[in-house]
Amino acid sequence: MSWQSWLEQQADERDEAGLTRRLLPRTAADPTTDLAGNDYLGLAGHPDVRRAAADAALAWGAGSAASRLVTGTLELHETLEQELAAYLGQPAALVLSTGYHANLAVVTALADRSCRVLSDAHIHASLVDGVRLSRARLTVVPHSDVAAVRDGLVAAREAGERTLVLAESVYSVLGDAAPLTDLAALCEEHGALLVVDEAHGLGVHGPGLVHRLGLAGLPHVVVTATLSKSLGSQGGAVLGPTGVREHLVNRARPFIFDTGLAPAPTGSALAALRLLRERPELAARVHERVRELADLLGVVPPDGAVLSIPMPSPAAAVAAQAAALDAGVRVGCFRPPSVPDGISRLRVTASAGVPDADWQRAVEVLRVVVKDHQ
Amino acid sequence: MSWQSWLEQQADERDEAGLTRRLLPRTAADPTTDLAGNDYLGLAGHPDVRRAAADAALAWGAGSAASRLVTGTLELHETLEQELAAYLGQPAALVLSTGYHANLAVVTALADRSCRVLSDAHIHASLVDGVRLSRARLTVVPHSDVAAVRDGLVAAREAGERTLVLAESVYSVLGDAAPLTDLAALCEEHGALLVVDEAHGLGVHGPGLVHRLGLAGLPHVVVTATLSKSLGSQGGAVLGPTGVREHLVNRARPFIFDTGLAPAPTGSALAALRLLRERPELAARVHERVRELADLLGVVPPDGAVLSIPMPSPAAAVAAQAAALDAGVRVGCFRPPSVPDGISRLRVTASAGVPDADWQRAVEVLRVVVKDHQ
Repeated sequence: MSWQSWLEQQADERDEAGLTRRLLPRTAADPTTDLAGNDYLGLAGHPDVRRAAADAALAWGAGSAASRLVTGTLELHETLEQELAAYLGQPAALVLSTGYHANLAVVTALADRSCRVLSDAHIHASLVDGVRLSRARLTVVPHSDVAAVRDGLVAAREAGERTLVLAESVYSVLGDAAPLTDLAALCEEHGALLVVDEAHGLGVHGPGLVHRLGLAGLPHVVVTATLSKSLGSQGGAVLGPTGVREHLVNRARPFIFDTGLAPAPTGSALAALRLLRERPELAARVHERVRELADLLGVVPPDGAVLSIPMPSPAAAVAAQAAALDAGVRVGCFRPPSVPDGISRLRVTASAGVPDADWQRAVEVLRVVVKDHQ
Repeated sequence: MSWQSWLEQQADERDEAGLTRRLLPRTAADPTTDLAGNDYLGLAGHPDVRRAAADAALAWGAGSAASRLVTGTLELHETLEQELAAYLGQPAALVLSTGYHANLAVVTALADRSCRVLSDAHIHASLVDGVRLSRARLTVVPHSDVAAVRDGLVAAREAGERTLVLAESVYSVLGDAAPLTDLAALCEEHGALLVVDEAHGLGVHGPGLVHRLGLAGLPHVVVTATLSKSLGSQGGAVLGPTGVREHLVNRARPFIFDTGLAPAPTGSALAALRLLRERPELAARVHERVRELADLLGVVPPDGAVLSIPMPSPAAAVAAQAAALDAGVRVGCFRPPSVPDGISRLRVTASAGVPDADWQRAVEVLRVVVKDHQ
């Protein structure tokens, strides 16, 4: 089959399944209430954070101009790494240009063909891709199933395999927290390394769930984070023992063969981190709002900032999303293949950045829209 | 072996081989002449480009706050995509958050287990990783060997495999240009798709070599580019037929599961693109400088902006790099595993952004340093 025919066939199949995705650009003065993004604390639009991005670009240039290993490491990167590590209670941090890069980097640099990876069934695409690239021996563990992780660790130990366990502190789609205390204890007992993605935990839980649970700084726990959600910027980070950071600097292809994070998002992530440290009320507001909306809609409140509302079909989810947008409220929509269980959902972010009056109006819009489409 | 022992063993092996890499941070007012980066036209530091980054952050926020598919697509992204496509002579462009993401996206979205990939031996790590992730059937072709590509295409056609051919317009390490006209003709003849990474061609060759050679806009040629080299910012792009763009929007995991490029690098890449269009003398200056330096050092002038100077050992390369830095000139150093042939090299960028007097002084420093360490 020719490339052109194949592309057309793929497009037709998507259209028939109602799964074609289109990009809907925002304007700078978007009048809608945005409950679709991952700017959980509203810091992407905070005046101090915008200003920090601008100042960094003016002071350091528009790009970092090279790989971090060549001449693309700025003192600004090191300041951000030091303050991130201190806030998350970790010995060392390494900043990468996306959260995706951070997850690819940590898995590919640590795991190889001789390793075993025990991966939660709901982990993010970037960790899945990291495992594929590493060529490690993969066991997908049922979601948050501690007993299955234990069985996997016992088997790996008997086989003499170095083992990574992959989890997220708060999962993206369902918003549930991982059993991190149990996982960390099992990893210590069996000599495995636990990698926890704090993409949806950092900020919403202050320094993250790993820190909250007293697991930060342990030699068998490595954290990844993103700078593009609660920190309102762009980029990712790997945090953990200094030996892990040094190993990544030397071996992680997605770090070595990539241009360093641009000055603007580096500067704004640093400013957002400082605001986050100083203003715990931002995270508290997220939790209040998410509980309020969950109670109203009769769904279980999540551990993170994102409420997932199951819908009867992909088409119903899309129609509900469109109805909300018509009423001035932008929400997300999860459809296959972005969901672990095939169930389409509305995805509503209880962002602390939305003014109170807009939030109350949005809650009422969602109450009606969800009722109409369920 | 425990994780800690393994990390220590890896570190010891690197130290013994003289291959340990360390990050050397730059200050904002770095007094050295930087010939190490990929800011080929000096646009990362151009006042208009810095200003555009700052203005975009102030107008649009510090981050784009979501996946491009959710609420992370800004009109600014679309403007950049339209102007990039127009300048490169392509029907459509899709911007991603790094060049690495662009290469992962195009290969993983187009190729699958049933495909054949014919990959030049010198292509970038991100394309190699894309192929691994795609699980396509891989044939590594000797560097710029047109006959070997033809043989591969004939075999793939007989096997009924949809086939991708991967090349760079200008290769990073040796700075040589690919035989693109021949490769494009072969791909057309055999129904294959040619993917050309213009990371080192865009800007240094105006709209890139694909365009210069009259290959832009052909249905069997797809281009990837980076916004972090000649465009002085951060990010990547895939350019080609609209059907390819739509396919990537729907299927490319490194696009779908990633936060959209932040406003600042989006805005600065757009400003840099406009400067590049208006100032062809920038590229001309790069070519003059690279020829001047190549003649002086007795090496073959490259087709790109980067001169590679073979050194007798990794240690000699590191010592020469340190001597140049002591004399105020920052150059790069390629050592295994970042080189395709195991030969360590100094890497010197003939950036148009360096003032004339600094360039002349740097040329004299390099003449002495290279002589002393060869």
